[in-house]
Amino acid sequence: MERRDFLKKAGIGAAVIATSTLGGPYVIASPKFQWKMVTTWPPKMPVLQDGAERLAKRIEELSEERLKIQVYAAGELVPAMGIFDAVSQGTVECGMGAAYYWAGKNPAFQWFSAVPFGLNAQGMAAWFHAGNGLKLWEEGYKAFNLIPRPAGSTGVQMGGWFNKKINSVEDFKGLKMRIPGLGGKVLAKLGTTVTLTPGGEIFTNLERGVIDATEWVGPLHDLRMGFHKVAKYYYYPGWHEPGTYAEFMFNKKAYESLPKDLQAIVDAACAEMEGWLLAQFESQNGQALEELVTKHNVQLLKFPDDVLKKLKEINQEVLEEEAKKDPLGIKVNEDFKKFQKLIGSWGAISEMAYYNQIAVGGIQSK
Amino acid sequence: MERRDFLKKAGIGAAVIATSTLGGPYVIASPKFQWKMVTTWPPKMPVLQDGAERLAKRIEELSEERLKIQVYAAGELVPAMGIFDAVSQGTVECGMGAAYYWAGKNPAFQWFSAVPFGLNAQGMAAWFHAGNGLKLWEEGYKAFNLIPRPAGSTGVQMGGWFNKKINSVEDFKGLKMRIPGLGGKVLAKLGTTVTLTPGGEIFTNLERGVIDATEWVGPLHDLRMGFHKVAKYYYYPGWHEPGTYAEFMFNKKAYESLPKDLQAIVDAACAEMEGWLLAQFESQNGQALEELVTKHNVQLLKFPDDVLKKLKEINQEVLEEEAKKDPLGIKVNEDFKKFQKLIGSWGAISEMAYYNQIAVGGIQSK
Repeated sequence: MERRDFLKKAGIGAAVIATSTLGGPYVIASPKFQWKMVTTWPPKMPVLQDGAERLAKRIEELSEERLKIQVYAAGELVPAMGIFDAVSQGTVECGMGAAYYWAGKNPAFQWFSAVPFGLNAQGMAAWFHAGNGLKLWEEGYKAFNLIPRPAGSTGVQMGGWFNKKINSVEDFKGLKMRIPGLGGKVLAKLGTTVTLTPGGEIFTNLERGVIDATEWVGPLHDLRMGFHKVAKYYYYPGWHEPGTYAEFMFNKKAYESLPKDLQAIVDAACAEMEGWLLAQFESQNGQALEELVTKHNVQLLKFPDDVLKKLKEINQEVLEEEAKKDPLGIKVNEDFKKFQKLIGSWGAISEMAYYNQIAVGGIQSK
Repeated sequence: MERRDFLKKAGIGAAVIATSTLGGPYVIASPKFQWKMVTTWPPKMPVLQDGAERLAKRIEELSEERLKIQVYAAGELVPAMGIFDAVSQGTVECGMGAAYYWAGKNPAFQWFSAVPFGLNAQGMAAWFHAGNGLKLWEEGYKAFNLIPRPAGSTGVQMGGWFNKKINSVEDFKGLKMRIPGLGGKVLAKLGTTVTLTPGGEIFTNLERGVIDATEWVGPLHDLRMGFHKVAKYYYYPGWHEPGTYAEFMFNKKAYESLPKDLQAIVDAACAEMEGWLLAQFESQNGQALEELVTKHNVQLLKFPDDVLKKLKEINQEVLEEEAKKDPLGIKVNEDFKKFQKLIGSWGAISEMAYYNQIAVGGIQSK
């Protein structure tokens, strides 16, 4: 709604708008809004639940309290996996989660969060903001009365915690591993018994040998879960989630009921949080990795090159199968592949060369 | 200034503030501002001058025209290298440039823009927003009555255009190359004749053999300069500028005269632009590289590993020499090194492994 329209509807005459000469007082009339945000994260989950709370606080500052958002962690108002429906139906105005949780609504949504052997954080951001990524995401969520906004990336995730070594793809056969999503589908093709063990049960299941392996996020979150106490090997890289993106989602009607300046404020605050989130992950993962390696003597292992090569091949099949389940999936997969190829060529002579020849690195060589 | 204070000073009684029940009309009083922004970029410079203009437009939207900024390219109001002083002295309220242009004010400022063999875009963002980077930058600029905000990164730059092959460090001896800043100091130690040829004269000087080589930015900007017509080899990676950051700068008094919500709007808009800028560089560099290689048959060459190793060693000396020129330099250099080491270890098992084993890439293998 344009401010002018609002003023009409609210019955405030134009005389209230006392525009003045430059630098003088300027009075604007605007409605106030009180919203609820529900997330898929446990209370106090570092960086992610923090991100939701920071967003709310920031929007309040930017809008001079015209838009206030009360944030609820998973289960406080709506269960984690219920937030998509709650925001879609307008029970609450907004939410924070990750698009791949909603593969059941449309398999294409997985591309907006994590594609195995897909784009990393920098590539995803470029696809969203300088490619067609966000446009396609908006198109997909529109059918559910939702408006998505990228909330930031975890960066490259870790490959997971294993109690059995992976020396060849044959070692995935018969392995019991907690790994959801597209990555799980890839391993299932290799004979892995894929489980979807909930977060709270993984530690015990690893300890008791109910599962042999699990993936989670990265050093920061993995350290808090204590997996180093019950698993021998910490594998990298996270081929299945190379740049996982979180999302903010808004009920379309609620978003559109905001005056234009508040819509812009919501968008700018989301973009600010997008940068903040990745910065936090990079910095705090760095600190947590140091603690895992130097204090807890965690053994870092890299998946062998031929294992990654084989996983990449199988992943191609999985992506094509998933994509063709919905017309949007085909469109999104084609656009994603095209973009990945374009910036992949550039990445090979820029970031790849940076990491191999320029960066300070190599904790494994300590 | 708090809104309450402003109202007092502007002589507006509290009665004007007609707060209402939730969702009803809410009237806020705010002054209007008209600012000028001067940049170091030529008019129409892709992405960079665009970024300044987008920032102005965005702040106008977010503030509902309470803060309007007129943008001037280099030379339109102030010469490129005069913008720091103009904003510092309050002749204009804000500017856009890059902190390494102001090494003459304090050599420490170079660390906030580009450090040879330093952090890439993702690392710089983490240092600014999750480390001490921005705090130190603010400390440094405060002495000049300025407030800095990161404006986004070009990503890894290219090593430059050469008419002589670089097979060993000896090949830098006697080479005439246009390369400013810390990178230039490194090459000078190897016997290179370092020039600071202005942008508009590089093409002709390369064509006539006045210089043998030049660095510029990356595929997008280099293509527009037409260097592929007058240079044989396009070298990577840009060891001297692995994640160059642009800056927004604000006159401190002007910034602080804004009500709190407008200050927050300026900051959020800068952060939004920070993400936008890198996304544009990544995507448009990808497109320009494809054009350079497939249409103009440009020959991409990688600096040999032993050359990069030697440059890295000499760079360490240069950084220490530069840092100790000012107490802030020592502080910034130490903090930067510590942060680079911390996230370097993490980068080695995350992004490095991503680029080597996961990403699609390798235009040179076509």
